[in-house]
Amino acid sequence: MPQFDVMTFGETMLRLSPPGFGRIEMADSFEVRVGGSESNTAVALAQLGRKVSWWSKLVDDPLGRRICQDIRRWGVDVSNVIWTPTGRTGLYFVEFGARPRPHHVHYDRAGSAASTLEPNEIDWSLIEASRHLHLTGITPALSEGCAKAVRTAAKEARKRSLSVSFDVNYRRKLWPPDHARSVLSEIILDADLLLCPVADAEEVFGLTGSAEQIAREFQQRFSTQNVVVTAGKDGSIALEGEVVHKADALESFEVDRVGGGDAFDAGVIDGYLDGELERGLRFGVAMAAIKYTIPGDQLIATRAEIEAIASGVPARIVR
Amino acid sequence: MPQFDVMTFGETMLRLSPPGFGRIEMADSFEVRVGGSESNTAVALAQLGRKVSWWSKLVDDPLGRRICQDIRRWGVDVSNVIWTPTGRTGLYFVEFGARPRPHHVHYDRAGSAASTLEPNEIDWSLIEASRHLHLTGITPALSEGCAKAVRTAAKEARKRSLSVSFDVNYRRKLWPPDHARSVLSEIILDADLLLCPVADAEEVFGLTGSAEQIAREFQQRFSTQNVVVTAGKDGSIALEGEVVHKADALESFEVDRVGGGDAFDAGVIDGYLDGELERGLRFGVAMAAIKYTIPGDQLIATRAEIEAIASGVPARIVR
Amino acid sequence: MPQFDVMTFGETMLRLSPPGFGRIEMADSFEVRVGGSESNTAVALAQLGRKVSWWSKLVDDPLGRRICQDIRRWGVDVSNVIWTPTGRTGLYFVEFGARPRPHHVHYDRAGSAASTLEPNEIDWSLIEASRHLHLTGITPALSEGCAKAVRTAAKEARKRSLSVSFDVNYRRKLWPPDHARSVLSEIILDADLLLCPVADAEEVFGLTGSAEQIAREFQQRFSTQNVVVTAGKDGSIALEGEVVHKADALESFEVDRVGGGDAFDAGVIDGYLDGELERGLRFGVAMAAIKYTIPGDQLIATRAEIEAIASGVPARIVR
Amino acid sequence: MPQFDVMTFGETMLRLSPPGFGRIEMADSFEVRVGGSESNTAVALAQLGRKVSWWSKLVDDPLGRRICQDIRRWGVDVSNVIWTPTGRTGLYFVEFGARPRPHHVHYDRAGSAASTLEPNEIDWSLIEASRHLHLTGITPALSEGCAKAVRTAAKEARKRSLSVSFDVNYRRKLWPPDHARSVLSEIILDADLLLCPVADAEEVFGLTGSAEQIAREFQQRFSTQNVVVTAGKDGSIALEGEVVHKADALESFEVDRVGGGDAFDAGVIDGYLDGELERGLRFGVAMAAIKYTIPGDQLIATRAEIEAIASGVPARIVR
Amino acid sequence: MPQFDVMTFGETMLRLSPPGFGRIEMADSFEVRVGGSESNTAVALAQLGRKVSWWSKLVDDPLGRRICQDIRRWGVDVSNVIWTPTGRTGLYFVEFGARPRPHHVHYDRAGSAASTLEPNEIDWSLIEASRHLHLTGITPALSEGCAKAVRTAAKEARKRSLSVSFDVNYRRKLWPPDHARSVLSEIILDADLLLCPVADAEEVFGLTGSAEQIAREFQQRFSTQNVVVTAGKDGSIALEGEVVHKADALESFEVDRVGGGDAFDAGVIDGYLDGELERGLRFGVAMAAIKYTIPGDQLIATRAEIEAIASGVPARIVR
Amino acid sequence: MPQFDVMTFGETMLRLSPPGFGRIEMADSFEVRVGGSESNTAVALAQLGRKVSWWSKLVDDPLGRRICQDIRRWGVDVSNVIWTPTGRTGLYFVEFGARPRPHHVHYDRAGSAASTLEPNEIDWSLIEASRHLHLTGITPALSEGCAKAVRTAAKEARKRSLSVSFDVNYRRKLWPPDHARSVLSEIILDADLLLCPVADAEEVFGLTGSAEQIAREFQQRFSTQNVVVTAGKDGSIALEGEVVHKADALESFEVDRVGGGDAFDAGVIDGYLDGELERGLRFGVAMAAIKYTIPGDQLIATRAEIEAIASGVPARIVR
Repeated sequence: MPQFDVMTFGETMLRLSPPGFGRIEMADSFEVRVGGSESNTAVALAQLGRKVSWWSKLVDDPLGRRICQDIRRWGVDVSNVIWTPTGRTGLYFVEFGARPRPHHVHYDRAGSAASTLEPNEIDWSLIEASRHLHLTGITPALSEGCAKAVRTAAKEARKRSLSVSFDVNYRRKLWPPDHARSVLSEIILDADLLLCPVADAEEVFGLTGSAEQIAREFQQRFSTQNVVVTAGKDGSIALEGEVVHKADALESFEVDRVGGGDAFDAGVIDGYLDGELERGLRFGVAMAAIKYTIPGDQLIATRAEIEAIASGVPARIVR
Repeated sequence: MPQFDVMTFGETMLRLSPPGFGRIEMADSFEVRVGGSESNTAVALAQLGRKVSWWSKLVDDPLGRRICQDIRRWGVDVSNVIWTPTGRTGLYFVEFGARPRPHHVHYDRAGSAASTLEPNEIDWSLIEASRHLHLTGITPALSEGCAKAVRTAAKEARKRSLSVSFDVNYRRKLWPPDHARSVLSEIILDADLLLCPVADAEEVFGLTGSAEQIAREFQQRFSTQNVVVTAGKDGSIALEGEVVHKADALESFEVDRVGGGDAFDAGVIDGYLDGELERGLRFGVAMAAIKYTIPGDQLIATRAEIEAIASGVPARIVR
Repeated sequence: MPQFDVMTFGETMLRLSPPGFGRIEMADSFEVRVGGSESNTAVALAQLGRKVSWWSKLVDDPLGRRICQDIRRWGVDVSNVIWTPTGRTGLYFVEFGARPRPHHVHYDRAGSAASTLEPNEIDWSLIEASRHLHLTGITPALSEGCAKAVRTAAKEARKRSLSVSFDVNYRRKLWPPDHARSVLSEIILDADLLLCPVADAEEVFGLTGSAEQIAREFQQRFSTQNVVVTAGKDGSIALEGEVVHKADALESFEVDRVGGGDAFDAGVIDGYLDGELERGLRFGVAMAAIKYTIPGDQLIATRAEIEAIASGVPARIVR
Repeated sequence: MPQFDVMTFGETMLRLSPPGFGRIEMADSFEVRVGGSESNTAVALAQLGRKVSWWSKLVDDPLGRRICQDIRRWGVDVSNVIWTPTGRTGLYFVEFGARPRPHHVHYDRAGSAASTLEPNEIDWSLIEASRHLHLTGITPALSEGCAKAVRTAAKEARKRSLSVSFDVNYRRKLWPPDHARSVLSEIILDADLLLCPVADAEEVFGLTGSAEQIAREFQQRFSTQNVVVTAGKDGSIALEGEVVHKADALESFEVDRVGGGDAFDAGVIDGYLDGELERGLRFGVAMAAIKYTIPGDQLIATRAEIEAIASGVPARIVR
Repeated sequence: MPQFDVMTFGETMLRLSPPGFGRIEMADSFEVRVGGSESNTAVALAQLGRKVSWWSKLVDDPLGRRICQDIRRWGVDVSNVIWTPTGRTGLYFVEFGARPRPHHVHYDRAGSAASTLEPNEIDWSLIEASRHLHLTGITPALSEGCAKAVRTAAKEARKRSLSVSFDVNYRRKLWPPDHARSVLSEIILDADLLLCPVADAEEVFGLTGSAEQIAREFQQRFSTQNVVVTAGKDGSIALEGEVVHKADALESFEVDRVGGGDAFDAGVIDGYLDGELERGLRFGVAMAAIKYTIPGDQLIATRAEIEAIASGVPARIVR
Repeated sequence: MPQFDVMTFGETMLRLSPPGFGRIEMADSFEVRVGGSESNTAVALAQLGRKVSWWSKLVDDPLGRRICQDIRRWGVDVSNVIWTPTGRTGLYFVEFGARPRPHHVHYDRAGSAASTLEPNEIDWSLIEASRHLHLTGITPALSEGCAKAVRTAAKEARKRSLSVSFDVNYRRKLWPPDHARSVLSEIILDADLLLCPVADAEEVFGLTGSAEQIAREFQQRFSTQNVVVTAGKDGSIALEGEVVHKADALESFEVDRVGGGDAFDAGVIDGYLDGELERGLRFGVAMAAIKYTIPGDQLIATRAEIEAIASGVPARIVR
C-alpha cells in the first residue's frame, strides 16, 4: 500500500498582511503566514487524517525554512522538498478590504526558487509512494520549467496508476487566457477529477451557462469522468459520470477569504478517494466555510468539526 | 442597615483566549481575563451602584491574586475571600468562532481551590452584612463540599432574613441532569427569585412550552414567587406572583458572548431589590446586550449608560 | 498660477483610542492617530492629487511634531504652521461601540495651542498661493480669536479672488446653537460652496424639510450658489444654482466612523474646482464610504481606487 | 483602633508611554498606566499588607474612573475620593531613553480636577480613621488651594494625633525653589518623618554636604526627629533622633525608572509605623530596586518577596 | 541502520509567560510556547541535522495538539505519541525577572496526561528504530508509572543495544532528594553518558568538590564511562574514561533563560554519537549560549551557526 | 540661494524585522520600517534643520508609496522621485541578535525599481537647486545604470559648483572589492569630503594602519581635502587639509544598530556645510550614538537634543 494518500506540488510563498483592515501603504507591521494553493490543500487533507506529501523547491535560508516548517507543523510530509542554497523566496501581500473597498493581493514572486524548478530535478519514481496526485493551474503559469514539470507529473502519475486531480485556478496576472488554455488543456486530459470555478471556465475556456452545463461541457471536451464546478454563493455541483451532486454554499462570517478554494479541493479529494464524491462535495463546502473563519491560508480543524458542520450548522457555543 | 446590598459566592477562573478569531491550536498568545458567573454578576451590580460582596476560595499565588484584584478593581468587596497557600487555580479557555464555526469553551478546573470549599470554612454569621444572597447552579456542581456550602448558604440566608436569588445555570460537562435536578431542587425551595434559561428548564427539569408556561410551572413546583425565564432571541419573561412582565431581546453586535446571562441576572436583581421586577427585566435585557459588545466576561458600564439603552437604542455616536 | 489648489486651516488633535471594542475605562493601551476636520480634508484632497496647504498652530514638542509629521506624510504642505514653544496639544479619545452601545468621543482640547490663534499671527498675503480656501464651523467655536481668524480668512480670500467652501460642522459641546448661528451666518455670506448635514441645519439654523428644501433655503438666505446637504443613509444632494444633483449613500462596512464627512468634503471640493459638482458629489459619497473602512481619521486611497468605487462597487478581491 | 494604617492624598494622572524605546514623536500606540507619587506609595504600602486610604479629586468620566480602579485594584481604599462631573484629568507622557538618550517626562496636568481641590471640600474629621498621614511636596505645587489643603491636612493630623511623613519631592517645572521653600518649610514643621533626596535638599533648601550632614541640618532646622536622605547610587541614610542608619543602594536592571522613590517611601513608612526605622530603610531600598524592574509606576510584589531581597540578593530563578 | 539517531520521551507542557518583564499578577496576556526538557533536547538535535523521535502522552484536544505540532514543526518525529481522549495538559507559567527580582517558574502539571503514562502503554520493540535513547530525571518524578516507564526504557535500550544518556535534572518541587537518589541511581546504572549540574550532584547525591572531582565520583559510583558535569559560569567538564575535557562558559545576553541545559545536552549527545565528546562539549556550551538569546524553550539555529559560535565569537552583524 | 542645502539619491527599501530578539525562521510578524543609506542621512539632516531633497526611483504601488511617505514624513523633499508603474520594491530583513548570536541582515533587493535607474532618466539641471550632493558606494553597486548615474551626478555637481561628499559604504554581497575599487576610485576623485570606515579602507583599498594614516593616504591618493575615517569603538578622525580632528566613540545602549553610520554622515555634512568639520565630527558621533537607541534606520531627534549629547552626557531623566 502506498505510504501517502495524496501527493501534491507547487509554490508556497510567505504571506505578509497588515493587521485588521489596515492598508499596506500605512502598515507598521505585517502578520507573517504561509500560503500556496497546493500546500493549503495538503494541510487541509492532513487535518482530515490523510497522509500527504508536498513537494516544492525552497531556498535554504530563514524564509525558505519558515515556509517548510509551517507546512510540516500541520502534519504534511516535506521530506521531498528540493533545497537550493541561493535564490529568492516568493512573497505576497494581502490587504483585507471592507465593503466597498476590495481586498488587494499583491504578488512579489517573480524569479522565486519555486519558479526555477525543472522536471529533471525530480526523481519521478518517488511518486509511487502516493495513491493520488493533486495539481493546479497556478504552477504551470510560473515558468516554462514549471509547466513542463506539471505536465510530466501528470503523465508519470498515469503511467504509475495514480489518480490525478486538477484545479484550473486561473491567475490573470501570471499569463493570458489563451496561453493558459493551451497549456492547461493538455494537462486536464490526464486528470480523473477536474475542479474549476465558473469564472475561470468562462475566462479561460469560454464556457458559459449553468454550473452543470459547464461541467458537462468539460466532461465532454476532456473526457474527464469527474468534474466539480463552483459558483460561489450559487453553490457548486459535482458531475460523477452521469450523476449530478449539488451543494448550496454555506453562509459564513468572513475572517480571511484566502485559501477557501484550496480547502474545498481537499474536501472533494477526500470524498473522491473513498469513491464518495457527493460526501466530498459536502465536505468541501463545509471546509471552505470554516476556512473563511480562520486567519491565514490554512484550514486548521478536526475531521469531527468538519463533519459536524457538513451535517448542519451546529450550536453557537460548545461548552 | 446591612453593609452590602448583595452577597454572592462561587468559583472564578482565569480565562485564556486567543486574540480575534484565532484557534487555540494555533495560538501564540492568550488574552488573560477573569470570569465566574457569580463574580460577573457581582461586578455588574457594582456598576449599577450596588454594594456587593463576593466570597470564594483562592490560592495565594500570582494566579489567585490576579483573579481577586480584577474583581476588587471594579468595586466589589473581596475581604471575605478564603486564601489557601496550596492548590491550583481553575482555568478556562475560550475560542471565539465565527459562523458556521462555533465558539469553544474548554474548562481546566478540576481540583481547583474553589472546588475544595467546605461549609465549615465559612463564618455564616457574616452574611448578615448583606440584604440579599445570590447563588447559581454552577457551584453545587463543583464538588460535594460546594453543594453543601450552597445549601447551607441558602438555609442560613432564610434564617437571617436575607432574600435569595438563584440562577439554574446548568453545566452539562460538570454533572448529569438527574443529579443536578435533585440537588438544585432543594436549593430552589429556599429561593425568592428563580432565574432559568428555557434550555436548562427542559434539560434539567423536563419543562417544555412557552417561557411563561415554564415560569408558572416553576412557581407552582417550588412555591417561588418570582420566576424569570429567558429564551434568547425570543426574549424573556418575569412572573411576579400573578403578574407577567415581558421583554424583547435587544439586537446586539456580538463582540464577546460570555457573561451575558450573568449581566442579565444583575439587572433583574437590581430591580427586585427595589421591588421593581419589571424594570429589572428591562435592565437585565439591556445589560446582557451591552455585555455582548465588551471584551471579557465582565460588564463595565455606568448606570446612566445602561438606563439609556434600556430606554431605547441611543445615537450611534456620542460626542 | 497659484502654487496650491486648496488651502485650509484649523485645529488637529492627537487621537487616542483603545484597540478593538475596548472601553476607555478598561484600556491598557491607546492607538495613537491624528485628526482634525480640516487636515482630514486636506489629506483626502492630496490623495486625489491636489496640491494642498494646511495652516495651524502647534506646540514645538513631541506631540505637536507628531501631528505635523502625520499630515506632511500624506503629501500636504505644512510649511505655514505656526509653532509655539509653550502650550498644550489638543487631545481626543475615541471609544468604538458596537450596537447597541454607541461610540464615545471625549474631547480634551480646552486651552490648546490652536485655540489661542489670533488673526494677526498670520500673514494673509500668503493665501494668494492658493486658488481655494476651505473652512469649517469647528474653528470659530474654539475661541474668540479663532472665530476672528476664520472671519478674516474668508474676507481675505474674497478680496484676493480665492473661492471659499464652508462646512457647518456644528459641535454641540463647544458652543450653543444661537451663538453658532450668529457667528457662522456671517462667514457663510463669504462662501461660494456651503456644506451642511441636515441635523446641523435643523439644530443651528432651524431648517427642516427634505435635503433639497434645506439646500434651497440656504441658497436663498445666504445667496450661496452651491449648497451641498447630506442626510446620512438618505443620501445627499448638491444644488448648483438651479440644478439639483443627487447621490445615494453607499453601503459600507464600518471599521472607523470618524472622518467620513471630511473625506466627503474633499470629494465635493475636488469636483467644484473643476466645475463638476455632480462628479464631486459622487466622489464625496465614495470617499466617505472608503474612509469608513480605514482605521483612523484620514482617507488613504488612490484617485484610481476612489474613481472605481464612485463608478460602481468593484470586485470583492483584486489579485 | 483606627481603620487604616496610613492615609495619603494627592494627584494621580494617566500615564501614556510609547512601547519599548520608541519616541513619542514616532508613536503609533501608548501604553496606559496610572501614576502619582502618593497613590504609588499607597499601593506599595498595601502590598506590604498595610491598610491604606487614598484621597483625591477625580473627574467622573472614563479617564477618572480608569485611575480610581487601578488604585483600588491593588487594595487601596478609594471611598473618600471626591468626584467632580466636569473638569479634565491630568496626563503625563513618559518616553524611555537608552544611554546616552535620557528619559523624557512630559506633563499635561495644568487645570486638572485634582489641582482644583480646596480644603473645604474635605471632611477633616474622617482622617481619624487613620494612624498616619503621608504627604508630598508635589501637591502644594499644583495650586493655591492644594497648598492650603496640604497645610490643613498636616495641622489636622497633628491635632488628631496622627503621625505625619513628608517627602519633599521637588518638581522644578511646577514652581521655583524659593516659592517651594517657603511653602514646604511650614508643612515640614508638622512632620514626624521627613524624606528628601540630596538634589532637592540643595536646590530647594540650599543644603550641601554628605547625606548625613544634610539630614542633621534638616533635623535641626525643622525639629523633625526622623529624617531620611537619599543619594541615589550613593545609598541613603536615616537619622532617628541621634541614631544613624545607613543603606547601600541595591544594583538593579532598570525596566522602568518611574516610581522608585515612592516605593522607597512606602518601605520607610512601614518600618516607621513599627518603630523600626532601620528595617524601613532596608525595605525602602529593596522596594525601590524591585520597582525599577517592574513596568509602570506601581510596585507589585508580596511582603515575602520584598523581605527576601531586603535580606540579600536571591537566586536568579525560583522554580 | 536505525531510522532515528536519537529517541527520547518525557512530558512537554504549554508554557505561558507575560510579555517583557511583566508580572503574572498584572498580566493581560500570556505568550504561548511549548517546553519540556526532552522535547527541547530533541528539537535542538533536529537542528543539528539528527533524526529524532519524541514519545509522550498527550490529550487529543487543542492544547495537546498545540504541543505536538510545535515539536513536529522543528523536524522531530511525533508518530509514536500516545493520544488520550480525556485528561488535562500540563502547564507552566514563567515570569521573567530582572536583577534583583528573580525569574519565577510556576508549575500547574499535577494530574497531566503525561504523568499517567504506564510502561505497558508502550510497544518497546519500537525503540529499535533508534541508535540512542535520551532520558532525564524529571520524568521519573512525575508519577510511579512514569518512574517505571523510564526504568523500563533504560533496560530495554540496553537489551537492544541502544546507547543511553541521562540528565539528572533534579526538580525540588516534584520530589525530595532521598526519593530522587534511590530512583535515579538505578537508572544511571544503565546509562552510558551521564549529565549533571553541580548543584544537583550536591543536593541529590551529596557530592561536593570541583566539577572534575564530582565527575570522577559519579564514574566510580555508577561505572559510567562518560560523565559531563556543568557548573554554570564556571564552565563544564566531560570525563571520557580517563580523559578530561574542559570548556569555559560562553558569555551571553540572556533573553530567555529556560531551556539552556536541554540545548547543552543536545550538543553533548551529538558529539557522543560521533565519538567526539570534546566537540560535543564545545557544541553544548555554544548551544546553551545561543538558546539564552532566543525567546522560548527551544533552540532554533542551523548547524553552521552553532559551529561558528562554537569556534569563537562571530562578527556583531552578518550582512 | 539654492532651495536645498543637500541633495542625495539612492535606493531605499522596505525593512522587515521580527519583534524583539525573535528569529526570522520563527516569526509570526514583522515590524515594517524604511531604510536606505542616503535617505537615512537625508532624514537625519532634516532633523538638524537642513533643507534636503532625496531622489530615487520607486514603484507606484502601496510598497513604493509606503517608502516615499516615510521619508517625506520627516521633512525631506521627495518631489523629484521617479515613479514607475511596474517593477518590484527592494526589501531587506533584519534579525536582531544578542551576544553571542550576531544580527543578520538578509537582502531581497535584486531587480528592484531603484536598480533599474539610468542617468538619462534624470534632469541634471535640477541639481542646481542644492548646495551640496551626498553620494554613497552602495548605489554604484546596484547595477551598471546606477553606477553611471552616480558618476554622472558627481560630475554634474562639480560642473555646477555643488560640493560633494561620498561615503564608501562597501557592501560585500553586492560586488567584489576589485570591482568596487575601480568604480569608486573614479567617483572619489570628484568628492570634496570622503567618509570611510577602516574596515572598508582595508577591504576595498588595501589601506591599513591607524585611522589617521588611512585618512592621509586617502587624501594623497585622491587629492580629497576632507577625509573622515571611522574606527567603531576606537573613535573617528577627520582630516581637514593638514588639521586633524579626533572624536572618541560615545558609549550607547544598542536598541537598533542599523543606520548609525548614516546618522554619523549627516552630522559630519552639517558641520562641513558651515565650515566646521570638527563640530561635524562631534555631532556625527553623537548622532550615531542616539541612532543606536532608536528603533528603525532613521534618527529622529531635535537639533537641541543632539547638541546636548554632543556636549556631554545629559541627565538620566528629563522632567
